[in-house]
Amino acid sequence: MFDLQAALDYAKSHEEAALQDLIDLLRIPSISTLPEYQPDMQATAEWIAARLRKLNFTAVEVMPTGKHPIVYGELSSAGPDAPTVLLYGHYDVQPADPLELWTSEPFDPQIRGENLYARGASDMKGQLVAFLRALEAVQQYGSLPFNMKTLLEGEEEIGSPSLQSFLEANQDKFACDLCLNVDSGIQSASTPSLTYALRGLSYFEIRLQGPASDLHSGRFGGVVENPAMVLCKILAGMIDDEGRISLPGFYDPVRPLSAEERREFAELPIDDQWWQTQSGAPMLAGEVGYSATERAVARPTLDVNGFLSGFTGEGSKTVLPARAMAKLSMRLVPDQTPEMVEASLRQYLQEKMPGTVTWEIENLSDALPGIVERDSPAVSAAIAALEAVWGKKPLFVREGGTIPVVGMVQRFLGADTLMLGFGLPDDNLHAPNEKQHLPTFYRGIETFIRFASEFGG
Amino acid sequence: MFDLQAALDYAKSHEEAALQDLIDLLRIPSISTLPEYQPDMQATAEWIAARLRKLNFTAVEVMPTGKHPIVYGELSSAGPDAPTVLLYGHYDVQPADPLELWTSEPFDPQIRGENLYARGASDMKGQLVAFLRALEAVQQYGSLPFNMKTLLEGEEEIGSPSLQSFLEANQDKFACDLCLNVDSGIQSASTPSLTYALRGLSYFEIRLQGPASDLHSGRFGGVVENPAMVLCKILAGMIDDEGRISLPGFYDPVRPLSAEERREFAELPIDDQWWQTQSGAPMLAGEVGYSATERAVARPTLDVNGFLSGFTGEGSKTVLPARAMAKLSMRLVPDQTPEMVEASLRQYLQEKMPGTVTWEIENLSDALPGIVERDSPAVSAAIAALEAVWGKKPLFVREGGTIPVVGMVQRFLGADTLMLGFGLPDDNLHAPNEKQHLPTFYRGIETFIRFASEFGG
Repeated sequence: MFDLQAALDYAKSHEEAALQDLIDLLRIPSISTLPEYQPDMQATAEWIAARLRKLNFTAVEVMPTGKHPIVYGELSSAGPDAPTVLLYGHYDVQPADPLELWTSEPFDPQIRGENLYARGASDMKGQLVAFLRALEAVQQYGSLPFNMKTLLEGEEEIGSPSLQSFLEANQDKFACDLCLNVDSGIQSASTPSLTYALRGLSYFEIRLQGPASDLHSGRFGGVVENPAMVLCKILAGMIDDEGRISLPGFYDPVRPLSAEERREFAELPIDDQWWQTQSGAPMLAGEVGYSATERAVARPTLDVNGFLSGFTGEGSKTVLPARAMAKLSMRLVPDQTPEMVEASLRQYLQEKMPGTVTWEIENLSDALPGIVERDSPAVSAAIAALEAVWGKKPLFVREGGTIPVVGMVQRFLGADTLMLGFGLPDDNLHAPNEKQHLPTFYRGIETFIRFASEFGG
Repeated sequence: MFDLQAALDYAKSHEEAALQDLIDLLRIPSISTLPEYQPDMQATAEWIAARLRKLNFTAVEVMPTGKHPIVYGELSSAGPDAPTVLLYGHYDVQPADPLELWTSEPFDPQIRGENLYARGASDMKGQLVAFLRALEAVQQYGSLPFNMKTLLEGEEEIGSPSLQSFLEANQDKFACDLCLNVDSGIQSASTPSLTYALRGLSYFEIRLQGPASDLHSGRFGGVVENPAMVLCKILAGMIDDEGRISLPGFYDPVRPLSAEERREFAELPIDDQWWQTQSGAPMLAGEVGYSATERAVARPTLDVNGFLSGFTGEGSKTVLPARAMAKLSMRLVPDQTPEMVEASLRQYLQEKMPGTVTWEIENLSDALPGIVERDSPAVSAAIAALEAVWGKKPLFVREGGTIPVVGMVQRFLGADTLMLGFGLPDDNLHAPNEKQHLPTFYRGIETFIRFASEFGG
């Protein structure tokens, strides 16, 4: 337990120090995808490990993986009966190119107006430093009311290739009650929000073979099955005229949207016109009965991600292709699982595929959907913290995308994830002139302090 | 008019000379696709022009085109009231590689057993020399009962790129009543046959665009139309569950098969099992109510020749593609025309394409189907000639493929084409060890002499 007001005052009076911490960390070019930055990756991990030790973490380790290390630490000051929160984040950043589009050097942080410009300022060294500074403030006047572990990886920007096997191999070490994922954002500097659900993913490749080899369509057309046409029919049959997915039992595990959720979606400052403008599509499309926002973030979807068959160069070639291939993925919502979706897809294919072709499917990647209960203590604490800092209730947000680590934490550690971070939509993530909005950075520190007070406090 | 028996006797006693003509012509490597053979192309055209002059053709010309010349000549010995037959053929050959698979040099003709081996021996210098030798025999004992012109091109093996504009620009010069296309074959050395119909072709590329650029399927999936899925639905809707093409009015101009034709198809020595073995497909497919042979040669078909959309490399990329493209072609039968088919396709697309995408189609190539009436004087003459030489009635054959020149002659000259040539299925066309079966070569000369006597005689 700690003195909340004193901690908040401390944070307020140490904003310069927080800024300097962030600048120090941003000066290390921790680009995970380029081998020449390997020493910088190690230096960044060590910087964080040192800071964790200073914050009374024990068993701090820079744990090697196949590529970049994971920074682990434990803080057990709340005692054995308190819950354990696993802090997830990443210390690697995207490459900075194209360099010529940066106004100042990407690894020489510069303040212009209310913003600090540097690669990684928002994604996500700013979020990480905000949390560490909040923890420092708390520890000046007491201790956290919960225990902590950290899972700070260096491979997020390259797709976290080591994470799944690492978590699978270290389930006991990382055991926790809740994951706090600070690699997240809010709607705008003046609109706090809380992402309480993410969609999962099932991604497949379907391969069909008709005749033994490509044939001449003049000679064999009309006699031999065209596998491209079969694949068209198979895929076409997966979505009905109302935009609903026709795979057997696909919607059975889908948790219906509550009236409250739908009201909240309707209140979000994004309407169908916003989606159309963003996409540049001539019209929107999708499942009837749901708004664009609902379809984008809270309903399962199915997309053809790629299709290849036959001759696709310039001009004409009268080939009857031997093979056709499609990449197909579904976005999953609670309580669907990749296993259910794959079973549904396989059943559909077994029922519909004609005997004129042979076929196979391969599961290329998948992720569980993520959700935290809106009435859970963690969400309640986050709401109270955000409302206290911004002076208004946060928007409840679901995201349409997939954050694989959320599914992995669910699968291997059995823990829900609370997404609580303060990136802004205009922070230029992965782009030139990435920035951290400093007033939001300081509000982030305050929010984390208040969250610590509310959650288990 | 000429003395038939004397001409036949002349041909019989001059077989050695005919063989020597063929060997001479085969020694010139007239490979149209390789620039270094340009002098050989010219030499071959000149060889033929000289031979035409010797056969009393007038106005003989080696007419330049964009690439390889066309050999033209006129023979007006039958007088202004007699019909004019346009001899179509080509003097170019395929490249000979892979050279190491040839038993003897491709341009050093060698006899082994009953066959003469050389590139172009069957396709189609053998057919051309057979006709010229027949004409020489006829002219020893009279003259042809019809007039002639020649259209002997040097670009057939590279897709006749100059022919359409050449014919369009020279319609009067090549005006004729019938085209005799000797670039053809029979079922086997012991089975004479007559190809009386060819399928036409309409070949399109369809391009769809949904959103302005590729989108993230996690962010926009379910909100924005997936153009690959739309294209799948559009293509899938073109063929119904019975294998029939659903484009509006597509079958209206299709001439039904007569009972006689269907009986003849049933008597051909190729059954459904033959088609399946040839294709290596697990099962045959196609329009219900017709045998495989009928579907392959006498019914219109529709094939997806290519399909490309989104990400088609290895692994997974969660893209919602902005674009999708398909290549689509139909094989046409009498009395369909490419114009009708295009109108039908456009109507279908206009009716079915949703407003969620923009689209365009491009006609990449087309050809009229070809047919000569089975009871026409030309067909009757060919039947009589084939039966007299082989001692049995020829099979009536339709071919599933398209010979573009047949459609061009129909379009620009208004003339039907009689296909009469003597290539054999095992002549290794376009492959190593191409051959001419010499007994068939001599029977071809005799058949042309008898045809000349029967047609207008």
